[in-house]
Parts: sequence; structure tokens; C-alpha cells
Amino acid sequence: MYTLITGASSGIGKATAETLAAKGHDLILIARSTAKLERLQQMFMARHEIDVKFFTVDVTDPAVVEDFFAQIQDLKIGNVINNAGGCLGKDKFQDALLEDLFTMIDANIRGFTHIAHRGVQRLIETQGTLVNISSIAGIEPYPQGHVYCATKAFVKTISKTLRFDLMGTGVRVIDIAPAAVNTNFSKVRFKGDVQKADAVYAGYQELSADDIAAQIVWALEQPPHVNLEHIVIYPTAQAGPRDYARE
Amino acid sequence: MYTLITGASSGIGKATAETLAAKGHDLILIARSTAKLERLQQMFMARHEIDVKFFTVDVTDPAVVEDFFAQIQDLKIGNVINNAGGCLGKDKFQDALLEDLFTMIDANIRGFTHIAHRGVQRLIETQGTLVNISSIAGIEPYPQGHVYCATKAFVKTISKTLRFDLMGTGVRVIDIAPAAVNTNFSKVRFKGDVQKADAVYAGYQELSADDIAAQIVWALEQPPHVNLEHIVIYPTAQAGPRDYARE
Amino acid sequence: MYTLITGASSGIGKATAETLAAKGHDLILIARSTAKLERLQQMFMARHEIDVKFFTVDVTDPAVVEDFFAQIQDLKIGNVINNAGGCLGKDKFQDALLEDLFTMIDANIRGFTHIAHRGVQRLIETQGTLVNISSIAGIEPYPQGHVYCATKAFVKTISKTLRFDLMGTGVRVIDIAPAAVNTNFSKVRFKGDVQKADAVYAGYQELSADDIAAQIVWALEQPPHVNLEHIVIYPTAQAGPRDYARE
Amino acid sequence: MYTLITGASSGIGKATAETLAAKGHDLILIARSTAKLERLQQMFMARHEIDVKFFTVDVTDPAVVEDFFAQIQDLKIGNVINNAGGCLGKDKFQDALLEDLFTMIDANIRGFTHIAHRGVQRLIETQGTLVNISSIAGIEPYPQGHVYCATKAFVKTISKTLRFDLMGTGVRVIDIAPAAVNTNFSKVRFKGDVQKADAVYAGYQELSADDIAAQIVWALEQPPHVNLEHIVIYPTAQAGPRDYARE
Repeated sequence: MYTLITGASSGIGKATAETLAAKGHDLILIARSTAKLERLQQMFMARHEIDVKFFTVDVTDPAVVEDFFAQIQDLKIGNVINNAGGCLGKDKFQDALLEDLFTMIDANIRGFTHIAHRGVQRLIETQGTLVNISSIAGIEPYPQGHVYCATKAFVKTISKTLRFDLMGTGVRVIDIAPAAVNTNFSKVRFKGDVQKADAVYAGYQELSADDIAAQIVWALEQPPHVNLEHIVIYPTAQAGPRDYARE
Repeated sequence: MYTLITGASSGIGKATAETLAAKGHDLILIARSTAKLERLQQMFMARHEIDVKFFTVDVTDPAVVEDFFAQIQDLKIGNVINNAGGCLGKDKFQDALLEDLFTMIDANIRGFTHIAHRGVQRLIETQGTLVNISSIAGIEPYPQGHVYCATKAFVKTISKTLRFDLMGTGVRVIDIAPAAVNTNFSKVRFKGDVQKADAVYAGYQELSADDIAAQIVWALEQPPHVNLEHIVIYPTAQAGPRDYARE
Repeated sequence: MYTLITGASSGIGKATAETLAAKGHDLILIARSTAKLERLQQMFMARHEIDVKFFTVDVTDPAVVEDFFAQIQDLKIGNVINNAGGCLGKDKFQDALLEDLFTMIDANIRGFTHIAHRGVQRLIETQGTLVNISSIAGIEPYPQGHVYCATKAFVKTISKTLRFDLMGTGVRVIDIAPAAVNTNFSKVRFKGDVQKADAVYAGYQELSADDIAAQIVWALEQPPHVNLEHIVIYPTAQAGPRDYARE
Repeated sequence: MYTLITGASSGIGKATAETLAAKGHDLILIARSTAKLERLQQMFMARHEIDVKFFTVDVTDPAVVEDFFAQIQDLKIGNVINNAGGCLGKDKFQDALLEDLFTMIDANIRGFTHIAHRGVQRLIETQGTLVNISSIAGIEPYPQGHVYCATKAFVKTISKTLRFDLMGTGVRVIDIAPAAVNTNFSKVRFKGDVQKADAVYAGYQELSADDIAAQIVWALEQPPHVNLEHIVIYPTAQAGPRDYARE
């Protein structure tokens, strides 16, 4: 039984892969970076008695995603961690690059939906679990968040509707909404501006990717009748998207 | 000063165009159907002393949308009614056609965002008003609603964030969320199955497109300092997405 | 047919009374201040051909409310404007006066619920309309808002549930959620500190009680099949509970 | 360091007490039933090397609550599990007993707020954790839920605002919202009608009080910088307040 992780090469995806590998789960890792995936595969298979497969997949390319699911059609998928996605830019909506807006929609919504759609079809076979990674941005929208916030509201809402559609199948759907997690999220948002990215996490103890991975694994390990439908995780020192107790 | 209406050839868009035409507003109408737009233009200009322009625009085609905004760059835009979009299919998520899911995302999110982005850039010049048409589907998600519900949660959330980003510009952003409105919405959703579509509106008095147009016009006609940020409109006989008092 | 207004002696209640009086509605006004109610009665009956009754009622006193409804049992009630309530204090929760917290709960929840309960029993006879006044505080909770915000979330949520329970009766339930309205709200919140109260409305054009009354009347005047379930009203210059474009 | 649990004599409160006792936590248990509390004290102190204190407290009686906090003023409180509350009746709002509505408001809001207020004042001393038990009823309001749903929306909203007010103190606030849990909840709601109560949990695997206790303990045991702000827990076989996959 494999756990499929998207966006597996870094951040929350990678941390979840590490945690699950250490617990003996077989893994299917997908991301855009072949080199990083290959390194993870080697590391995990060297350290743990598990099988790790990886596929270079850009979730925004429908043909590639279809091809990927065709390739894994004989494997049993017990969990899907639908994690790929991100944020580009932090200008006001009217000043944002149209291209960035489309990129976020394509990854966080189109690609996300594609993985969810093919994923749940496979999870029905195994009474498995779908974990969607949303964000507090989808719950408490903030200035300059526009399309990013809205893509995460999309994830929250579709997660709820999937609970209805999958009722009776045994498939669980879990929506995990983190606040500030120190991954490369902010570096990507600020397009490599390390100073701006670092400032997001300065002066307080932020969440780590491992903190989120711990929640994902906790949710997966619940007895089959328990569905942790929605988990909102904040650093104790952060109270809202714009509220931090910085030193 | 023109009011730009997307999805103007039928339903809420058309009813809004009619109401505004009768009140003397100049209009720019866009939709995919040239013939319908042409007919509306002729009718409105025959009946009212207004200017009506129309453009055949599929909002999901970025090049076409860019070209359209280039063509209207010398016109003053006082209002944008961001109404194009719809729903395809009412199967469970796992049984839906992937193609339908993508079509909804492309129209309700990609196209919607494109119009909003270029629209607000123009509205800043005129301290104008953006009206987004969402749905109760984005607030109270329901079975078999999946991607459609989530696209409308996208609209609700981005509408809120735009209020932040446009604060101080004088631009107003209004999110109107109707429940059951008898337009061709259900006929499109059920792909021409008239019986299924009619059943949605059977046995109670549903909303008409004119009922929604009346709210839009009311919101536009408020004094400039009043922003009706969010209006949820139900038939009195309907209490939720699945709750109707049918005879 | 009478419209019953609670908190009728000032602010939104009074403005609504004035607007409805001018349109020829018979009124039943309740509040704690006999003198103010008496003055309104005299003024309205002098100016308009309507009947105005008033009762000195503290909605937090169950016996008084029961007695009040007993006294009006022979009158037809077409609308109830459930407006009484307010906010006390703006300290952090841990620093607030327990007494203030209880006072807000008693007015905004206990009294509100009592009026709603007896009110809808009467509205069922007339297929009338209940208008609840909530606040953006119930949608976008903010620092130092604690109990006040939560009481308004109570109002929002019970308004939605009443729609279910009253489905099929013809009774409409409308929840109106204003942002910054310049009434004595802030003077009460800051316990008479006029400087603090005025600062809330400084440097931008806030809403007036009349602006809200206009929405209430618009909602009441919709055709019977149209229920404006939820209306969120902001000053254009305000984007959130903490976001103002002040000069 | 003590964990204070309200509503500790049965259901989620008792299960949480049992789980924490087994992990060696000192406990302060409060509820209305002296006999049940005494039995729990004896059992826990016989089995585990912990201190257990109990107090007969009706949280709706302000004087009793004040007196209780005076009595424990010298004890260190590391956690407060704000769990007391419940539901009375399942008629439509217009048919409900006014007395039941007030009882719910007094327990779920007045008593709840009192415990939260005095509780956080004590938790600031210890950088402790407040766990509020809300319900999916506060998120997805349902027919005949009226006041109960609204009291739980109150809990959800005040929990969020407390995060703002306590930012920088190190105190964590956690809101746990369960769906169907088989406790005496439904027996109380249906006022002893065992048949109706049992029907709620028939034909699918519902949650147990222990399932919820496990989430509470998990949240408490997170590292101090991790605040699981909001956890929504459903049985896998339940998708909404009215949606069950029953056999």
C-alpha cells in the first residue's frame, strides 16, 4: 500500500515523506525536480525497508498527470497527500502579474483538482485517505493575498464537498490549514528575495514542516471511523495572518 | 461611462443589461454568442438613448480577453458586472468528467480572475464598482457540488481580499450570492436535460434573473460611501441548497 | 399591520422607525427610555398618518418581555426589527469586566433570542419578516472584540437556522451585518469617552444609521418571494474591522 | 500543575479526565453531580499517582463560579478543558420552550464565558492551554438546531478572538468541534427519550468520547509553539449534520 505525495521534493511534502518513510510506509513521490526526488528515493530506501517510487510530474500538465496515473494503475494507493501548490507575489491585486495569478490557479486549483479526482478514484479501492493541504489564507483572507487566499478557500470548500460525495465509501478527506510554516514558501512568494522571505519568520517561533507532517501522520493513524476533517494549525505566537508576537 | 457586463447574452447578465439600459446606462456587453449580443444591442439602442457596444469574448481565452481590453482602452468603465460562469454536471466528484471540472475552473476562476484583474485596473480610473456574481454554493457546499461550490468560494474570498487591496481608491467590490434563480443555469448543468432542469424550480416560487438584477442595480445606486459588500439572496421558499418548501 | 422595532430610541432602530413612519407604516417601538420613545411617538404621529405605540421594555428582563407580548397580542405584527443590543468595553478578554461580558450576553443573545422567539410566533400569522441586526464583528472577529464578536456570530448563525425552521411559513428572516456606523455605539462601548468614540469615525466617510435603515426598508419592500438573507454593509473606505482608509 | 475540566462527570469531560489521569496529570474536576465526581476522584487516585480535587459547580451560577475560582487560587492551572454545556430539545424554534432556550444560553454561553474568563487569567500565569469544546453545529447550522447551533458559533468565534487577545502570553486556545459523539448528549437533548437518542447513533460507527479525548490530549501534548487552533472531527460515515451512511 503506497502513500502518494505531491510536491514531495521540499517543505511539507518532503517532511511528510520523511516521517512516513521512518514509519515504514511505501511511497510514491512526485514533484517537478527529478534530481531531488531521486535523492530522496535513495536516502529513504537506504535507511528504511520500504519501497519508494518517484515520478517527475508537473501537476499543472493534464497529459502528464494522466500518464502518471496510468503508470501507477497496478499499485494500491492507501493515502494521497495533495500538497503541491504555492504562492507567487505579494502585490495588490491590481498590481500583480497576470501570469502569476494564472500560475497559482493552475497549480493550486487545476493541478490540485486533477490529483484529487484521480486520487479519490484510487482511494475508493482501498478505503484510503485524502489529505489536502490548504492554508489559513483560505479562512482569513488578507491584503495582497487575493488569488492565493481564494485558491485556498477553493481547497477548503472542495474538501468539505468531497466528504459528502465519498460518504459510505470509507474514504476519509482531511483538510489541513497551516499558518506560518518555515519552508521555501515565502522564498517562492517573494521570488527569491531572501530578506523579505526571512522577515516573515523573524522574531518568533514559527511552525516547521515537521510540525505539519506530525499532524498529517496523526490524522492518517486515527482509527478508520475517525475523520479529522479540518485542522487549523498556528504557531502559538501568531494569532492571524497579520498578527504576530515578534520579539 | 460604460457598464461592462460579462455573460451578457442570457440570464442574470442579460437581465442586468436590460435594467441598466432602461435606466440610461451605456453598456459594453460580452459573451460567446455574437448573434445574441447583436440582438440585444439593436433592441437596447432602439428603445433607449444609450450607447451599446458588444464584443464576442470567451473569458477563458486569455489572448481574447487581453485583446478585448485593448480595444476598450479609451472608454471609461464605471462598473464591471463579472457574471460569466456556470456549472457542468451533477455527479459525485469521483464520477464527474475531468473535462467538466476543468471547464468550470477555466470559466469561473481563470476567466473570472482575468476580467476582475483588468477590470479593477480600469475602475481605479473612475472610482467605479466591481460586482462579482458568486452563489450560495460557495457558502453552503452541497453533495455533487464539488468544483462548482469551490469555484464560488473562490469568488467570495477574492471579493473580500479585493476590498483590502482597493481600500482608498474609491472602488467598491460587491459579491452577490444567489440561491435558486430560474435561468438556463440548470439546463447547462444538466447538459440539456430539460426535465431535470425544470425539476429544480418546480413547486415553489424561485428567483428570476430580474430579481438579481434589481439587487445589482440597487447596490450600484447606493451613495459612493456605501459598499454592499456581500448580499445573499434566497427564494423565501428555499432555506438551503437542499431545502425547499415545494407544493 | 405594525412593524415592531427594538432599540427604537436611537441609532439604527430610530432611523428605521423614521424611514418607515415616513412611508406610512404603523409602528410599535420599544426601548428602555420612556422619554425618548414618547418624543418619537409624538413626532411621528404629528407628521404622518400612522399609529405609533411604544412600550418601555428592557429586552433582558424575561418577565417584562413576556408582559409586553401579552399586551400586543391583538395587534397584527408584519415585521420585527430585532435591533436592540450593543457593546461594552474594548479591553482584552482577560482584562474585561465580567459584568460587561454578562451584560452583552444578556442583551445581544438572551434578549435578542426572546424577541426573536415571540416575534416569529407572531410573524407566522402574517407571513411577516424578521430583520436581525448583526455585525461584521460576527464574521471577521477582531482583537478585543471577544464576547461582542461572538454574540454577533450567534445572531448570524441563528438567523440561518431560522430560515430552515420557518421554511414553508412565508416568514422571511434577514440578517444585516453593518461595519462602522456612526451611532452612539462607540460612545457606549467606550463608556462615555467621547474622544475614543469619535476617533472610530475620524478621517473617512462612515455609514450613518440612515444608510442601514435604507437597506432594511429595501429588504422589507422586496416581493414576498425574495428573501435577502444576509447583507454585509461597509463604508467604501473601510475594508475590514481594522482596515480604514483615513485621511 | 492541574488540569481543570468542566462537565467532568460524564461524556467528553469524563473521558478526557480518564485519559489525563492515566498519563499522570493532576486534575480539578467540576460538574453538578457531587456523587459522580466523588466516584471519579476515588477511582483515579486509587489507580494513578495523581492528585484529584473536585468541586460541585453549576457553571451557570456566577456566585458559585466566583467562589470556586477563589478556592483554587493557590493551585497552578496548566490546562482548562471548557467542556460543560449541552442541548435541550429538537423542535423548530417557534415551537421550542423558551425555558430550554435560556438554559442553553446560560450553560453554553454565560457559564462557558465565565469559565473562559477566569480560566485564561489563571493560564497566563502558567503559559497554559485553554481547550473549548464547540461542535459542527456552530459551523454547519441545521434545522431545529437554532439556539444550540448559535451557542456553538459563539464558542468558535470567541475562541478565535482569544487567540488575538492572548497573543504574546504563551497561552494556547484550542477549539475542538466534534460531529456525532455517542455520549448522553442526545439523551439530554431528547429529554430522556432513549429511542430517539439511540436512533442518532444507529447503523454506523459514531465517535466515542474517548475519540475526542484523544484529540484533546494530542493537542495538549504538542510542543509549546504549536497551537492546534481548530479541529473538526467527524465519524468517517457522517459527512454533515444531516448526512449519515447508515446501514
